[in-house]
Amino acid sequence: MSLASDAPSLTRPNDAPSRPALDAFLAGLGEIPHETARNTVLAKSRDFFWYSPILKEQLADCAADVIVTPRSEADVIAVARLCATHRIPLTARGGGTGNYGQAVPLQGGVVLDLTGLTAIGPVIDGTVRVGAGAKLKDIDARTRPAGWELRMFPSTYRTATIGGFVAGGSGGVGGITYGGLSERGSIAALRIVTLEAEPQIIELRGADALRVHHAYGTNGIITELEIPLAPAQPWVDLAVSFADFAQLGRFCLELARTDGIMKKLVTAVEWPIPRYFNTLQATLPDGASLGLFMIAGASLEPFFELVALFGGDVVYRQTDVEVAAAGMVPIYEYTWNHTTLQLLKRDKDVTYLQSAFPSLERVAELGRMLGDEMIMHLEFVRAHGEIGIRALQIIRYTTAERLNEIIRIHEENGCPVYNPHTYLIEAGGMKVTDPAQLAFKRRADPLGLLNPGKMSGWTPE
Amino acid sequence: MSLASDAPSLTRPNDAPSRPALDAFLAGLGEIPHETARNTVLAKSRDFFWYSPILKEQLADCAADVIVTPRSEADVIAVARLCATHRIPLTARGGGTGNYGQAVPLQGGVVLDLTGLTAIGPVIDGTVRVGAGAKLKDIDARTRPAGWELRMFPSTYRTATIGGFVAGGSGGVGGITYGGLSERGSIAALRIVTLEAEPQIIELRGADALRVHHAYGTNGIITELEIPLAPAQPWVDLAVSFADFAQLGRFCLELARTDGIMKKLVTAVEWPIPRYFNTLQATLPDGASLGLFMIAGASLEPFFELVALFGGDVVYRQTDVEVAAAGMVPIYEYTWNHTTLQLLKRDKDVTYLQSAFPSLERVAELGRMLGDEMIMHLEFVRAHGEIGIRALQIIRYTTAERLNEIIRIHEENGCPVYNPHTYLIEAGGMKVTDPAQLAFKRRADPLGLLNPGKMSGWTPE
Repeated sequence: MSLASDAPSLTRPNDAPSRPALDAFLAGLGEIPHETARNTVLAKSRDFFWYSPILKEQLADCAADVIVTPRSEADVIAVARLCATHRIPLTARGGGTGNYGQAVPLQGGVVLDLTGLTAIGPVIDGTVRVGAGAKLKDIDARTRPAGWELRMFPSTYRTATIGGFVAGGSGGVGGITYGGLSERGSIAALRIVTLEAEPQIIELRGADALRVHHAYGTNGIITELEIPLAPAQPWVDLAVSFADFAQLGRFCLELARTDGIMKKLVTAVEWPIPRYFNTLQATLPDGASLGLFMIAGASLEPFFELVALFGGDVVYRQTDVEVAAAGMVPIYEYTWNHTTLQLLKRDKDVTYLQSAFPSLERVAELGRMLGDEMIMHLEFVRAHGEIGIRALQIIRYTTAERLNEIIRIHEENGCPVYNPHTYLIEAGGMKVTDPAQLAFKRRADPLGLLNPGKMSGWTPE
Repeated sequence: MSLASDAPSLTRPNDAPSRPALDAFLAGLGEIPHETARNTVLAKSRDFFWYSPILKEQLADCAADVIVTPRSEADVIAVARLCATHRIPLTARGGGTGNYGQAVPLQGGVVLDLTGLTAIGPVIDGTVRVGAGAKLKDIDARTRPAGWELRMFPSTYRTATIGGFVAGGSGGVGGITYGGLSERGSIAALRIVTLEAEPQIIELRGADALRVHHAYGTNGIITELEIPLAPAQPWVDLAVSFADFAQLGRFCLELARTDGIMKKLVTAVEWPIPRYFNTLQATLPDGASLGLFMIAGASLEPFFELVALFGGDVVYRQTDVEVAAAGMVPIYEYTWNHTTLQLLKRDKDVTYLQSAFPSLERVAELGRMLGDEMIMHLEFVRAHGEIGIRALQIIRYTTAERLNEIIRIHEENGCPVYNPHTYLIEAGGMKVTDPAQLAFKRRADPLGLLNPGKMSGWTPE
């Protein structure tokens, strides 16, 4: 519950900070901007966890006691010191666009809204140093005139922050060329503040950054990042319809393998998903599955050649410049987790999974096994030098038991599921606690106050 | 033999054009520049076939009757018309940097030196239109200020022409990111002149360009090309020594797989090859194998991290700007076929093979089988979405029989050899005649006068 009211809908967790501790914390904040107004606190205590009917139930009542919005790293350090002193939990937040409750405080306390740390430095050696709260789209806007752009971003590109992406995400658009955030070379450095009576600043470079990447802010407050970029080039948004989803899959795999076609996005959605894409200015035949692509201008001609070879029909084509000028919806907002969002806007009975498939044949087999309960959505990526077939399949939701059964069916058939219906880091994908992340939490958060409850492997010493 | 003298060292082939036919041809040339002086004719009738002791013997006596140097496509058309009229063989030539006798005329006649067609157009949609004779280095010099560069080039970059590369090459530096020239998207278009009484101009776009790519000019005279580029970025030349060649191989494979490290070159040469790299300003421990790399500036830090992880020692590092400013030898001139050249400069008893290996284990097995007879040289590339391990292994040459035996040992162990000891297109790699290339030859060269003798599948109708 918020400090501002005792709304009965919110049950304050037993392990939430005491009122005297909170009062002392608030008194210590001084001029650091903060909000305890109920509406603000509730709004900033949520992310997009409601995609999951399970998380929606589990996290509905969670709320911070106060939202603190640091203006600088010095403010972050001051807040960390106060939290350590008064034993106040701290959950860091960027744009709040995560889907797993990454930014939802389970034990009240502080939500640290980092969207004020918006600095974007110059591009040096193809790398940019940015504040954790810089929006992805703003980074590109700043670096493109210098000839550089982000290598990868989530479909929430227009609202997400770089810090939130690195702390809570794993990859997305661009992954078909550069792999995911955990690939060596994707993150140059992270600068974090520890939660201690005397907070330290630690810079983690290269592979060391993986200690904090995708740890949901449980083992350090990211304040700055150094991100390697790619040379910028013009991109074209494209949608291609195929009467047969299996044929669309084969087209996407062939496109993914074609190193001579430069691309940023290779997505395949099965009918009737495209029926929900009402803002996409494309006329689709009934029953048609849809491929969604971002292709480099220099590669359009061979792309069209491949489309013709596989019998697809180009139904939409806009350059990134045209899309921006006309205020249209960029194609990536129909892909990755935005595909799910487009459906949820009109159908509350669906949810989704996240998984990997070893082959297109296995995609077809699972489709036959699950019938109308599943509609397929594939994302093609690079995974350490190989082509990866990832799925964010739409599931018609009945019960949690059935959802778990569907997950089991996937895993028994060799399709690992990165469960988006849990707020635990480990349950989402890795299954076991990353020892490097846990060890770093002992160093950066000895009191266990950073986003408590999210790293299940953590126990106080 | 040349027209200028009856030098006894050259035996005129029986199927060479008759003197009256040649005289009529020469009379028709008018102002089109041409040379019949013996030295020029001999020099321009050769390429780097002498890498092969077998080709060296077979092609030693081959020479054109005249070197014609067209100033324009109109000149090319006029020459093609004259050749058709007087039944004069025509062999096209670029920089003459090929290794398989591609540009060596087997039946005398005309060598058409296309180095005069040097036009380089503006970059449009990341693609540049160029004359066949434009040098690769000159294309980059023109497109880099606009932010674009060639995706791939051979190690002869500084002297080779784009037309020669596409007509006689297959890939090289850059292949670790973009694959080879035959990958869909690598060539946007080729414009060719046919050899007929009324020569036609045919533009082959996209996959149709493969009808003429790597056909040694047997089925069309390439006059213009449209080449898709990559966004330009700064590159760093690096050499890394490893005490153990197998460990260097593992390092290269891991680097090749790491999509987060942007790269243009991943080469591994076994000791004692590095001993021959005397112009490389690197101090090498005795017995050390050497990795040679071009890494994007933005990816240097993760590259060094990987080097440390695998126990390598960075012995050389220069940016492309430093190399150019100091007039140093670029690192790629120690790789691909230049590796062989560096050895041949000091040891005439070696030659080489070109092959593919399914795994590093197989590299080690063949190494054990052949002992001191073979020194390994690996090039890592992308091959339609997968990592390819290619070899240009150095072979201590004894006899043609033993060389063929070594080829057989490779092939029996699952390592296909793209034999560089033949001037026949088919024997070099594909083993069978490409039906599309043959069909196109029937259309573009009905008289069989283009580079006769190189396409073994050709028979006059």
